[in-house]
Amino acid sequence: MTINANDPNRKSWLNVEKNSDFPIQNIPFGVFITQDDIITIGTRIGNYAIDLSALQMLGYFKGIDLTDDVFLQDSLNDFISAGKKTWRAVRNRVAEIFDLNNLDLQNNEKHRDAVIFAIDSVEMQLPVLIGDYTDFYSSKEHATNVGKMFRDPENALLPNWLHIPVGYHGRSSTVIPSGVPIKRPVGQTLPKGETSPVFGPSKRLDFELETGFITTDANLLGEHIPVDEAEDHIFGMVLLNDWSARDIQTWEYVPLGPFLAKNFATSISPWVITLDALEPFRVASPAQSPTPLPYLQQSGNRTFDIKLEVYITPKEKESKLICESNFKYLYWTMSQQLAHHTINGCKVNSGDLMGSGTISGTEPNSYGSLLELTWGGTKPIALPDGSTRTFIEDYDTITMKGYCQNSDIRIGFGEVSNMLLPASVRF
Amino acid sequence: MTINANDPNRKSWLNVEKNSDFPIQNIPFGVFITQDDIITIGTRIGNYAIDLSALQMLGYFKGIDLTDDVFLQDSLNDFISAGKKTWRAVRNRVAEIFDLNNLDLQNNEKHRDAVIFAIDSVEMQLPVLIGDYTDFYSSKEHATNVGKMFRDPENALLPNWLHIPVGYHGRSSTVIPSGVPIKRPVGQTLPKGETSPVFGPSKRLDFELETGFITTDANLLGEHIPVDEAEDHIFGMVLLNDWSARDIQTWEYVPLGPFLAKNFATSISPWVITLDALEPFRVASPAQSPTPLPYLQQSGNRTFDIKLEVYITPKEKESKLICESNFKYLYWTMSQQLAHHTINGCKVNSGDLMGSGTISGTEPNSYGSLLELTWGGTKPIALPDGSTRTFIEDYDTITMKGYCQNSDIRIGFGEVSNMLLPASVRF
Repeated sequence: MTINANDPNRKSWLNVEKNSDFPIQNIPFGVFITQDDIITIGTRIGNYAIDLSALQMLGYFKGIDLTDDVFLQDSLNDFISAGKKTWRAVRNRVAEIFDLNNLDLQNNEKHRDAVIFAIDSVEMQLPVLIGDYTDFYSSKEHATNVGKMFRDPENALLPNWLHIPVGYHGRSSTVIPSGVPIKRPVGQTLPKGETSPVFGPSKRLDFELETGFITTDANLLGEHIPVDEAEDHIFGMVLLNDWSARDIQTWEYVPLGPFLAKNFATSISPWVITLDALEPFRVASPAQSPTPLPYLQQSGNRTFDIKLEVYITPKEKESKLICESNFKYLYWTMSQQLAHHTINGCKVNSGDLMGSGTISGTEPNSYGSLLELTWGGTKPIALPDGSTRTFIEDYDTITMKGYCQNSDIRIGFGEVSNMLLPASVRF
Repeated sequence: MTINANDPNRKSWLNVEKNSDFPIQNIPFGVFITQDDIITIGTRIGNYAIDLSALQMLGYFKGIDLTDDVFLQDSLNDFISAGKKTWRAVRNRVAEIFDLNNLDLQNNEKHRDAVIFAIDSVEMQLPVLIGDYTDFYSSKEHATNVGKMFRDPENALLPNWLHIPVGYHGRSSTVIPSGVPIKRPVGQTLPKGETSPVFGPSKRLDFELETGFITTDANLLGEHIPVDEAEDHIFGMVLLNDWSARDIQTWEYVPLGPFLAKNFATSISPWVITLDALEPFRVASPAQSPTPLPYLQQSGNRTFDIKLEVYITPKEKESKLICESNFKYLYWTMSQQLAHHTINGCKVNSGDLMGSGTISGTEPNSYGSLLELTWGGTKPIALPDGSTRTFIEDYDTITMKGYCQNSDIRIGFGEVSNMLLPASVRF
């Protein structure tokens, strides 16, 4: 009999605080370094990091078809390549091991010491070695807001937007985990009314509230992934901050898209939440009109009700919640994004990251960027310390949180939180 | 005394045919698989592939600081990480080993059998594991031609073009070596006069004649590479075909740039030619007006005189030379591209690939794409078999060649040559 890791009634023998993002029903996957400098794949329950390589070595995964070193890795890529059946078997087994009624590990102090770490004692790493990073642009509200500000208020959405989950390639080398500080980028911008660009630190530094999904080896070169099979090739989701220098972007982005305005940093939350864990929160995505082309027509509910929040925190000051959005607002689903990405035969690999695009809702407090929240800098946001913000200032920290909640359980993402440092002075 | 691998008077005891791209002054680096299924890093002289891991094991690199398995790899990445001094030392040593006057290997039949293979007996691989692939847009003539056709003939160049080496991110997972056939991509296009897109195989399949350069670990996140240090971080160059589906591109590319129109395939030549080998062909790049911002101002001659050719070959028919261009036509240099790419602190890794952008000259027969050569399909090209081409047809092979030549020597790139196969029928 296989255990169902999603059973909302299961309690763990590990303490889980009320409103924790990581009850025993979550079981995310990540990579951490212990105080003994061991790097391993792990999971999290409550405020405990659990070393999956230690669990495997101690025999707790007996019966699951795993290579010996699948968890003794500095990335999830090999584990992801093992496929959905394996992820599911491991997640179910972890639920079983930490079930209140299971005494095996619970009563084995030596094993517990080898397996369980206080979350504050480990250092979270980037969970995957990202081969390619793609960023989509799938919020109709965001695309409309940007179109209104930068192009034509009467024709804010470009003609292709309702037919294509528009996306573009980003930079893998600068995807960083939560916690790593980011330097304000310098570059070229064109001051209003000028015809020649000037050089200096960006003055319009912004965040973009996104989620990302991580793929497995999904297809061969020249093959596509049908929309209704796409979820089988999605390992899980993270929170993603698509840091953006608006002034650099405005000057550089025609005709080939954003480049230096984005590729200085993209930060993600360190725990990958599986689609299995999100299953209880599956909902329908927005109705699509016009009907998309057949290769983008999906059946069933293909999105999830994930509450999203953004906080801004000036240095050593009080935080302010500046955005409340929801993943379910997105017009295009992950399934449609992956089907579109591969329709031309583009190969997708294990560990590839796909960003959702900025997730804005219809209400002004649900807009997923300062560009929209302050409407291009014209409506400053008041902070508790009396200061205001149009864009991000040096030493501000941007924190994004995400969680699903119903009357039974809460499945959360933790956070992606990074401080902005001043630009280097040597320019 | 260190030998100078560029000495034009050196002859090899290996036979090198007249007009070979690979005299003993070239010494490129690549990765191949032997008939015994051994994958190794190698070089080439004439029509011989030389196994560098075998040379190392036999002691021929004594005195050069190399890790034991640096050549027993399926990519050049670790070797590239070793840095310019190491690449140079290895290249000079290879020149010494194969010098006509050096009898060590020449007279050792057992060693020769372990080291030297007929080029036709090995299978060339992708030379690097590409972390990130960036494509620039640095030919003024190409950007002007495209601007004239797609936007405004009177203002063909966009305002940023003369200030920025415009670039965008491409897809690493679909960079393939010469020889691998490519399937015609399918996707969305908007027929003329329609408002809704249709689905099917691309009808305007094109090549783009480019070169690519491969970087080493050049900087940390948040650091930049000064323009006059950039060449120290460039390992070498390859030929690059940026396959492009023009009809998909036209519909999808606003506002975030090309995506599915490009990411189905990018092919490169398998031998990486070092900048050291190209040194005798260093020339000045075009004068730049307006003067670029200081971080893009370079000193000295920063480009190379590399003749480029494109051939089209219908299945089992005669080839036709359809384009003669030159790398030196490019407005922005590799040094400027790399300085620009990192000015915002974007991290560059060993094995990253940077495409030049389509290399067009001023003369119509020097245009680097069918889009320009046939002026948007309005001027068909006649082929020797009596057929004509506006865009690439199924089973056509596109071959790009590149070489430098002076009265002393010829340093060539070999070729990148790939056949286009029909689209999959299962759609």
